[in-house]
Amino acid sequence: MKLYDAGRAPNPRRVRIFLAEKGIEVPLVPIDLGRLEHKAPAFIAVNPLKRTPALELDDGTVLTESIAICRYFEELHPEPPLFGTGPLECAMVEMWQRRIEFGLLGTVAAVFRHLHPAMAEMEVPQVAAWGETNKPKVLEFLHFLDRHLADRTFVCGDTFSVADITGLVAIDFMKPARLAVPDDLSNVKRWHADISARPSARA
Amino acid sequence: MKLYDAGRAPNPRRVRIFLAEKGIEVPLVPIDLGRLEHKAPAFIAVNPLKRTPALELDDGTVLTESIAICRYFEELHPEPPLFGTGPLECAMVEMWQRRIEFGLLGTVAAVFRHLHPAMAEMEVPQVAAWGETNKPKVLEFLHFLDRHLADRTFVCGDTFSVADITGLVAIDFMKPARLAVPDDLSNVKRWHADISARPSARA
Repeated sequence: MKLYDAGRAPNPRRVRIFLAEKGIEVPLVPIDLGRLEHKAPAFIAVNPLKRTPALELDDGTVLTESIAICRYFEELHPEPPLFGTGPLECAMVEMWQRRIEFGLLGTVAAVFRHLHPAMAEMEVPQVAAWGETNKPKVLEFLHFLDRHLADRTFVCGDTFSVADITGLVAIDFMKPARLAVPDDLSNVKRWHADISARPSARA
Repeated sequence: MKLYDAGRAPNPRRVRIFLAEKGIEVPLVPIDLGRLEHKAPAFIAVNPLKRTPALELDDGTVLTESIAICRYFEELHPEPPLFGTGPLECAMVEMWQRRIEFGLLGTVAAVFRHLHPAMAEMEVPQVAAWGETNKPKVLEFLHFLDRHLADRTFVCGDTFSVADITGLVAIDFMKPARLAVPDDLSNVKRWHADISARPSARA
């Protein structure tokens, strides 16, 4: 088994943090996005959608999509559970993972991809108006998340989950997107500091 | 338990098809998107993100996000499995559900929301350039899906799954988005005809 990885990009980092929380080690194969290695024939043969991460199993089967890769490891190594346990908790983790993915990671990514000059070669065409449209959406979601976190340690309550992992990479992705968490969102700031202090955050 | 539903919109339909495949009946509460009922205080109290569907449990707990609601019912009523069984199949279903969601449902939705005149009041601001940018992405994904379906009955092989449901609503959403599956994509057309013929497609 090997994991095609891509350094600082948020999606590969989600999987590395997930593996670190589980205590699982998988050999990494670095793909250099800056050199467009994800668009080169060797990697297209692995993932025709040209995106990292990708997990290649020993029989050659390839799994892509960060959350699908994480779920594969969750099924193989259920402890500690990061997708919840029981019908309602599993659904709540899925709900919050998706809310944060669409409402925060996706909107921050749109700002980064469509407004950052360094992305001009990768995101064709850049649609600056789409990047701008997503800036207030990032803030709106952060306010919603701040209210939610007022009486919770983690996004889904007392237990760390994959929803926190998506949240961590999304907040950290705000820096290259030239966005910042407003100072008055103290719950988001406290939560982000807490999950950043976990050893897995360095993965 | 009751499900806040919204007629022809693709996400509520995903959940209704899922429930029909499971043989589960849940009382529906119609929300009229055309009359902006999803943005009215009564519904914001249910889902502050102003989106349908939403599942309200008897104790008042609210679950949102179509796939989270589907997963809740999968956990409660595992047969027939629509999210796969076993680590690899579960991961493959998740992968394809997400690939279709991002590559097809999301891109078709961008075309519809940002180019259709009827959406001017709902999608503020409409970014026409973003809608146009997504048109070739829809086609590119359809070609990818057509190659994948060449030797498969369903998206994940021999077994119908939630990935097919997302695919069905995405293809059907192309009509209001004023898009069409190219005639030469015979595998997509065959698969779409097959899943459209299932009784659940009328849900």
